[in-house]
Amino acid sequence: MKCRKCGRPAVFNMRQHKLALCQVHYPEWFVAQTARAIEKYHMFTPDDRVLVAVSGGKDSLALWDVLLQLGYRADGLYIDLGIDDGVGYSAASRAKVEQFAAARANAHFTIVDIKAEYGETLPEAARRTRRGRGKPCSVCGLIKRHAMNRITRDGGYDVLATGHNLDDEAAVLFGNVLHWQTGYIARQAPVLPASGEGLARKVKPFCRFYERETAAYALITGIDYIYDECPYAVGATSIRHKGILNQMEEEAPGTKMQFYLGLLRARKEGLFRELAEEVELHPCANCGQLTSAPGLCTFCRLWREAPAP
Amino acid sequence: MKCRKCGRPAVFNMRQHKLALCQVHYPEWFVAQTARAIEKYHMFTPDDRVLVAVSGGKDSLALWDVLLQLGYRADGLYIDLGIDDGVGYSAASRAKVEQFAAARANAHFTIVDIKAEYGETLPEAARRTRRGRGKPCSVCGLIKRHAMNRITRDGGYDVLATGHNLDDEAAVLFGNVLHWQTGYIARQAPVLPASGEGLARKVKPFCRFYERETAAYALITGIDYIYDECPYAVGATSIRHKGILNQMEEEAPGTKMQFYLGLLRARKEGLFRELAEEVELHPCANCGQLTSAPGLCTFCRLWREAPAP
Repeated sequence: MKCRKCGRPAVFNMRQHKLALCQVHYPEWFVAQTARAIEKYHMFTPDDRVLVAVSGGKDSLALWDVLLQLGYRADGLYIDLGIDDGVGYSAASRAKVEQFAAARANAHFTIVDIKAEYGETLPEAARRTRRGRGKPCSVCGLIKRHAMNRITRDGGYDVLATGHNLDDEAAVLFGNVLHWQTGYIARQAPVLPASGEGLARKVKPFCRFYERETAAYALITGIDYIYDECPYAVGATSIRHKGILNQMEEEAPGTKMQFYLGLLRARKEGLFRELAEEVELHPCANCGQLTSAPGLCTFCRLWREAPAP
Repeated sequence: MKCRKCGRPAVFNMRQHKLALCQVHYPEWFVAQTARAIEKYHMFTPDDRVLVAVSGGKDSLALWDVLLQLGYRADGLYIDLGIDDGVGYSAASRAKVEQFAAARANAHFTIVDIKAEYGETLPEAARRTRRGRGKPCSVCGLIKRHAMNRITRDGGYDVLATGHNLDDEAAVLFGNVLHWQTGYIARQAPVLPASGEGLARKVKPFCRFYERETAAYALITGIDYIYDECPYAVGATSIRHKGILNQMEEEAPGTKMQFYLGLLRARKEGLFRELAEEVELHPCANCGQLTSAPGLCTFCRLWREAPAP
């Protein structure tokens, strides 16, 4: 197979776009597509300060890399959750972020170390609290959301960018559709507007890329990332749903993209308008982030909860 | 496993209901559940004349059987599409309907013979027309809908009942959600109201039964039905989607039911309200059935279309 642009051997073929490209033109295409998505969805402008949530995985490091290449003012945020699991998952992923930044003159980043700041690692907090029983994923989401909002606000950033790709978005949507979680479906979008002072504007510049496309970009451009999934993700429903969607994509290429982009179109046409009512939010009495509950937010309550009996 | 009602050996177990029943109490439960669904969704009353579309398969014959047992005024409608395929699919399924009716004093039915009335069998009409190219399923749907509406009107019936089960409904919904066919999703319901004179009120009393539940009812009560799928259905998208849903049901029992009932709940809560605008309909100049196109309806145009070159 040959590169559509230059005729040299292609290294990557995208069936749903009917497009094969070589190792020079694939990264070029990938960067240009990211720039288009940022403009199409009005995510941010070159004047904005962007905080990129980086996990050490391929998607978030590729996103940071592309934003820096495009000349955006993009800093990183690494949240150290203290996941050890015998092989040092957090330490290893943190090392990938540090290496990435060290190799680039303009890659600055903040680390939030959960154990240092709150006295417990994620697994410890999950074991102690009711929310964490069984699986720590719910506590993890809570902690990460809170830290991302906090650093975006305290660091004076205009917007928070995450590396969610099309496979991630399609799998979340799939789960929400199976249970008709209409509130969540109504809010799932490439851009989530800021809410008052505490909740950052959130954008997903990679939401139109298949996971294999972000992986190919990282591999071809030599970004060194952590290959392992989080040890707690094994058996997660979202991974099962990704498997189902992959199976359908195999049978009908383009299924995932149609599914996700179809939602965006359906919403434009009026679906969900009635459901998008604003929930009333109040600042948390402790941290000031907006929360739907009166008093303390769920995050601040987490650290005060007595150990489960 | 023992019957929950009487303690004798159970013949059928429903994981999602955590309910096992014997060969006496399973049919009893099945009939009572059908009666509940008819009432819950206000499908029809004992005064109404019901036309049951019967294909010779397990679902539609079981539905006719249950409606007669419940004392409803239910007649059958068999549409002979003239599908031969070497093994006489239509003839065999018609024979099942005739046997079913012959064994019951009060089971009257109408036959619409497409070849006799319109000069061509379904496969012949599909081969001749553009709509039928590739697969005759689209032409088949068109022909069946038209015949069902016509006999409901001409026979003075109040309502048309079909044997669609939960697996059917979930698979249709799944396909429509994957492509966000919001118009179709908005209209998918246990009851479809009549539209003017030409389009019958349509109801699906089995929409809450899993396919294996209707099959179990037919087997346990000795209803003789045609086991084969329609020869044209092989490889159909809806069958692929059923496979995917079965796989998810296997991993998480209740998935299909949650998915379908969740839609009904979401719609009640306001989803789709804006999309449910009425399309303006006109009577077809030939047959009088309401149609969105001016002039002839798609069905009447089908029979006038010149052979594809």
